[in-house]
Amino acid sequence: MKTVVQKYGGTSVGGIEKIQAVAKRVAERKNKGDQVVVVLSAMGKTTDKLISMAKEISATPTRRELDMLMSTGEQVSISLLSIALNEMGYESIALTGFQAGIETQGYHTKAKIQNIDVEKVKNYLNDGKIVVVAGFQGMNENGDITTLGRGGSDTTAVALAAKLECVCEIYTDVDGIYAVDPRLFPTAKKLDVISYEEMLEMASLGAGVMETRAVEIGQKFGVPMYVALSSGKWPGTYIKEFDVTMESKAITGLSVSDKDLMVTVNHVPYNSQNISMIFQELAKKDVNIDMISQTAPSHGMVNVSFTATKTDEDIVLEIMETLKENFKDIEIDIERDITKLSVVGIGMRSQSGVAAKMFKIFADHNIGFKQVTTSEIRISYTIATKDAQRAIEEVAKEFDL
Amino acid sequence: MKTVVQKYGGTSVGGIEKIQAVAKRVAERKNKGDQVVVVLSAMGKTTDKLISMAKEISATPTRRELDMLMSTGEQVSISLLSIALNEMGYESIALTGFQAGIETQGYHTKAKIQNIDVEKVKNYLNDGKIVVVAGFQGMNENGDITTLGRGGSDTTAVALAAKLECVCEIYTDVDGIYAVDPRLFPTAKKLDVISYEEMLEMASLGAGVMETRAVEIGQKFGVPMYVALSSGKWPGTYIKEFDVTMESKAITGLSVSDKDLMVTVNHVPYNSQNISMIFQELAKKDVNIDMISQTAPSHGMVNVSFTATKTDEDIVLEIMETLKENFKDIEIDIERDITKLSVVGIGMRSQSGVAAKMFKIFADHNIGFKQVTTSEIRISYTIATKDAQRAIEEVAKEFDL
Repeated sequence: MKTVVQKYGGTSVGGIEKIQAVAKRVAERKNKGDQVVVVLSAMGKTTDKLISMAKEISATPTRRELDMLMSTGEQVSISLLSIALNEMGYESIALTGFQAGIETQGYHTKAKIQNIDVEKVKNYLNDGKIVVVAGFQGMNENGDITTLGRGGSDTTAVALAAKLECVCEIYTDVDGIYAVDPRLFPTAKKLDVISYEEMLEMASLGAGVMETRAVEIGQKFGVPMYVALSSGKWPGTYIKEFDVTMESKAITGLSVSDKDLMVTVNHVPYNSQNISMIFQELAKKDVNIDMISQTAPSHGMVNVSFTATKTDEDIVLEIMETLKENFKDIEIDIERDITKLSVVGIGMRSQSGVAAKMFKIFADHNIGFKQVTTSEIRISYTIATKDAQRAIEEVAKEFDL
Repeated sequence: MKTVVQKYGGTSVGGIEKIQAVAKRVAERKNKGDQVVVVLSAMGKTTDKLISMAKEISATPTRRELDMLMSTGEQVSISLLSIALNEMGYESIALTGFQAGIETQGYHTKAKIQNIDVEKVKNYLNDGKIVVVAGFQGMNENGDITTLGRGGSDTTAVALAAKLECVCEIYTDVDGIYAVDPRLFPTAKKLDVISYEEMLEMASLGAGVMETRAVEIGQKFGVPMYVALSSGKWPGTYIKEFDVTMESKAITGLSVSDKDLMVTVNHVPYNSQNISMIFQELAKKDVNIDMISQTAPSHGMVNVSFTATKTDEDIVLEIMETLKENFKDIEIDIERDITKLSVVGIGMRSQSGVAAKMFKIFADHNIGFKQVTTSEIRISYTIATKDAQRAIEEVAKEFDL
């Protein structure tokens, strides 16, 4: 008997009728004879509403209590889906993150899955039940409820599939993975298949469809994934191990993100310990930084730039202030109107000239860039947001995305 | 250092500002140097809203899932109160029923507290924290979330106070216990103090301020209780061990309930096993029955009447149908327009003539009654609802309530 983990996102369960529609889709799969685990997000905008209630009381609500508050969202949606399935005559059981054996560690509101004790889930599946699990949440070693950060329901689903050694289907409000976000480039092509590595780069660059951590877990444990519309109307995109047939194109996708800001620290006394200290302080506070660039030393000083997500601006500023205690001459410059543009493709490994083509596009169209970083399968640029749309169109045209 | 358990009901936490007001009241108590445990209900009408969502999906939602759904209500209110207290500079921690060590057993949606492992709560109190506990919920031996039935937050509060060997203060939207419900008899007198036994009779008769089980636990463990307005504006009512000074009045209070219906089973073949069977079937389905009366046998047949809560009507009818399989001649009669009227007072033990006075009032004012039952400290009557208001006024006048 095959097992499948299906994950439905917030808009897919945004109301009673939508929950009933999901129940029907789940029941269809169960009718095929599969063992079905369903992972749900909170209904519609519930999480945002809960957060705004907390923010009415405190600008900086205690994270432990915020986790406890937010976790109610998924608890509501799983209860209702399980009620709907039972009403339709399917035996179903709803499990909170804790009940499903999801053990976490790390910061509240940004916890990581440490282990999943899937015994209970397996027993219920073997009893013939549909198991409905709350996404996004778990319990840490203190018995406190934790949440996995935004998009954490994907992580729950893929981690469960890894433990159950089965396929993970992510149903959402987009019909698959596109070479370029169709909202930015309407003629973008949908991909039938993408490798974990490419998906990982796309996700971490803000492609938005899936959370990086979920893809990482998928890659690590070789979980076959499938991203599609929750209605099941169109074929979606498979995410799987790299396959030689994928290599014909140099570039698989173009990712665009406006979620970052660029921080430049000028006049840092040049010495590797100083630079290291800056990034260690950021890491301590769990600030995700992405593109890092550094000028060549001049008069014993360097300028260091990095990008961080805009939501972390307050924490970044706070850390920068404390740095001034050690480096009294530094100046902090923050640019908020920047866009991160990245081309991704496993084909880059064997096909050279991608970087050269990119630089030519920027030069031909007079688009300046502030930072450039490369990995084996991607090249990223930080450019001014006003130039982003032009750049997207020219790059998509050049690489036939 | 003294410990206190304070319980705030749903209307007291019905919005963000009200939660902030409760936080201030809790903080005032903490400032006096007491260790404070706060038990909360769900905000305002949250529980009703959650139930109605479930009912949109299913007329008979699975009770396990209904419990999981309803328990989110208290989880939201405790998170928000704890955030408010922390924001005010008080160290506070929110605990779900499970986290607070509340172990339950029995039916979903009507579970009973089996034990409370208060170690965790005590440790947090000793750390100087205000502990905010979700009322109404616990976890059973399967690790499933359970709820304690309507009014269960009172039970949580009193049970915690019993385990912590401290006072339990119930803050609500009424300013204490009245001799008669002021909505029915506006000049009713508020009691400064009432004994557990009297309160128990009043509560079980539908006096509405407190749940019977909470008072039972209070009595069993000798928990001093205090019922008052959540604003703390007026002095409330103390509930405590019986005290000789209370005995001067024959009647402490008059309880009135419209929540019941009266079921009469006619033509039951007279034999104690048959009667027993009826009530055993009702008990199996957890139907609470109250007043029971039986006619003298005639031609080997008896008529049995009992009252049950109107919300259980469906279950009662179902059980009555199955009875017909065994007793084919029985006829079921259900009266819905009845009111249960009870006078309660420990003074009855030593002062005779209460029953005589009551019968005289009914006779003088031409009020018929359908059933009468007595206990050591109460006399209850089932009367037609149309006669209720007149009866209340005459009884209250006679006994100076």
